[in-house]
Amino acid sequence: MELRDFFAGFWKDLSPEEQAALEAAAVRRRYQPGEVLHRGGECDSLYAVLSGRLRVYMLSGEGRQVTLYRLFERDFCLFSASCILKDIQFDVTVEAEKETEVYALPSALYQRLMAEKAEVSNFTMGLMASRFTEVMWRMEQILSRKLDARLAAFLLEESAIEGSLSLHLTHEKIASNLGTAREVVTRLLKYLQSEGLIRVSRGEIVLLEPKGLQKLAE
Amino acid sequence: MELRDFFAGFWKDLSPEEQAALEAAAVRRRYQPGEVLHRGGECDSLYAVLSGRLRVYMLSGEGRQVTLYRLFERDFCLFSASCILKDIQFDVTVEAEKETEVYALPSALYQRLMAEKAEVSNFTMGLMASRFTEVMWRMEQILSRKLDARLAAFLLEESAIEGSLSLHLTHEKIASNLGTAREVVTRLLKYLQSEGLIRVSRGEIVLLEPKGLQKLAE
Repeated sequence: MELRDFFAGFWKDLSPEEQAALEAAAVRRRYQPGEVLHRGGECDSLYAVLSGRLRVYMLSGEGRQVTLYRLFERDFCLFSASCILKDIQFDVTVEAEKETEVYALPSALYQRLMAEKAEVSNFTMGLMASRFTEVMWRMEQILSRKLDARLAAFLLEESAIEGSLSLHLTHEKIASNLGTAREVVTRLLKYLQSEGLIRVSRGEIVLLEPKGLQKLAE
Repeated sequence: MELRDFFAGFWKDLSPEEQAALEAAAVRRRYQPGEVLHRGGECDSLYAVLSGRLRVYMLSGEGRQVTLYRLFERDFCLFSASCILKDIQFDVTVEAEKETEVYALPSALYQRLMAEKAEVSNFTMGLMASRFTEVMWRMEQILSRKLDARLAAFLLEESAIEGSLSLHLTHEKIASNLGTAREVVTRLLKYLQSEGLIRVSRGEIVLLEPKGLQKLAE
């Protein structure tokens, strides 16, 4: 994947000089599983993920790691360059979960483009909005911890009833069983999937790790 | 306060026509305590708070209201116009806590300005970044609930020792007593202050509601 593909949202709005400057400044870097790309408080580069997987987490007051979201191929890691967003005043840590290759872009250059071009600024705002949405989901998930357990228990129960690890259940049906909203179920299923416990596809939920679900349900 | 004061960050970057359009479109509205200005899912106006206080909250899976932050005079309520930010996919409710007067600005006009002017877009990104920071603090506070209780207990204990409701304690000193980081203490104190339990000023912490602190400490 080329740099222009990452920035397809505004590449055509850049001058040839700006395009050349971005291309000249971008550096490919490779990280091993467990390596930390960014530690809260520092201001590093803006990372664009070429391959692999990054985990972004915060530290709770008691030093516990709380995963906020994961970044995959084609995603941007915005908060490793938090100094380009002067009102961001929180710290996150970014760690490679698999072998990961990124483009690293200098914050200062990106910040200049953002100040000059509404397209770059709006693109970046979209990135922030996506991360904000993920963090809000995560918060909801933390607040709905009991609901998590109940969902896991419900899936295991249905699986036992059907005698199958593949369930055909609508999110509405699950929601009405748990007494919550469809959107909440959709988010919780998405979370269970990101943890590798289930696989959700159109009209089907496959239990991948019944033991993990059992643990959650307890 | 005039509209131009709210938008001082980019007012000079607008054309006279754009300034006139904003001024013509802005409507003053007044809300009574308990009135809901915005309910998740809808796309209303961008609100600029002239006076009063707004509470922004989310609903947990189990229907509990979780306060995310409060908005005061000079603040903007961005998420009541969430449709201008296409990647925001979560719902919040905005409610007046006191009698509140706002300027209401149509989303469509603001969105057009944001698309055209990098200054408007960057200004808006700053608003979002501030709210993001507050939500992260709130999340930290939720995750550090035990630390909350310990901080309240510590303040009450110090108050008993000193025989005074006014304490002269550095955040560092509190942090080392609780075994956490100074920033965490600063955020928790800020939270206790926003709840009206204490008042924090330079070098001084005043316990305003010892009973409320006692309840938290239990």
